[in-house]
Amino acid sequence: MIKIRPYQENDWSALWHIIEPVFRAGETYAFPQDISEDEAHKAWILTPSATYVAVNQDGTILGTYYIKPNQPGQGNHICNCGYIVDENARGQGIASTMCEHSQREAVAQGFRAMQYNLVVSTNTGAVRLWKKLGFDVIGTIPEAFHHPTHGYVDAFVMYKRLSEESLP
Amino acid sequence: MIKIRPYQENDWSALWHIIEPVFRAGETYAFPQDISEDEAHKAWILTPSATYVAVNQDGTILGTYYIKPNQPGQGNHICNCGYIVDENARGQGIASTMCEHSQREAVAQGFRAMQYNLVVSTNTGAVRLWKKLGFDVIGTIPEAFHHPTHGYVDAFVMYKRLSEESLP
Repeated sequence: MIKIRPYQENDWSALWHIIEPVFRAGETYAFPQDISEDEAHKAWILTPSATYVAVNQDGTILGTYYIKPNQPGQGNHICNCGYIVDENARGQGIASTMCEHSQREAVAQGFRAMQYNLVVSTNTGAVRLWKKLGFDVIGTIPEAFHHPTHGYVDAFVMYKRLSEESLP
Repeated sequence: MIKIRPYQENDWSALWHIIEPVFRAGETYAFPQDISEDEAHKAWILTPSATYVAVNQDGTILGTYYIKPNQPGQGNHICNCGYIVDENARGQGIASTMCEHSQREAVAQGFRAMQYNLVVSTNTGAVRLWKKLGFDVIGTIPEAFHHPTHGYVDAFVMYKRLSEESLP
């Protein structure tokens, strides 16, 4: 049983423990692989409008996501989210649960759509999951991501229109 | 005769005079229409890696552009630029001159491509110009821009691969 709740400041060290290996691996997110803990805190907690954590029955954090407007001003009705699941808790549907939660949260916050700007093409599990959850690939950016082992690989722009009716 | 030179701190008041009406009109860039001068300075001068101005023979500033990495980390080999021409100096090829300059500058700085994330579909002059200068529409974001008179309109993701050979 996974529950999603808002991030609290004292979650940081557990959350950093989950996201640091993902940033260090550098295979899925365009963050510097040597990002400092402070910069990561700014990017994942301070810059977004909200951050959530996925916890199990014991309250252990197994995943996290943020939500923020994808653009300022006349573009701020489309949101952007990022999701990370603990490496040791993959395959339990946590990303799916977080994505569905984020769609409901987006509609509650008044967003009309959700956009991912840089879904790495080699991250096939994520691409498959976002498609299953209603996202379309609306653009392919040639060689947009410098993968540490595959070199320059394409990235997708993915998009889903949101409304009360579209919610999972 | 238009010359492009790096922005200097004492250019700000002339530059603000040019970009403020464009932000206030809110028809082409996703900046808040009520953006403060400080926020605009941050967005156009401090955040980018470099800002340039286009000047005529008298040294009068008629346009400006910025250049920056479009993404951090593994996405920082693709740059993003924004261009604004003085409302009273349109139709003189200044945007074209700035775009060509920015492509050379991008290659000099080691970027491999240039990407525009939100080209407003109703800004047909810009779309036509970027295509003429070698950019492709690689994605269409449905209703991505809330235009003050046209309502929600599509926006394009545009992209050009850059190399010594591709330069204008």
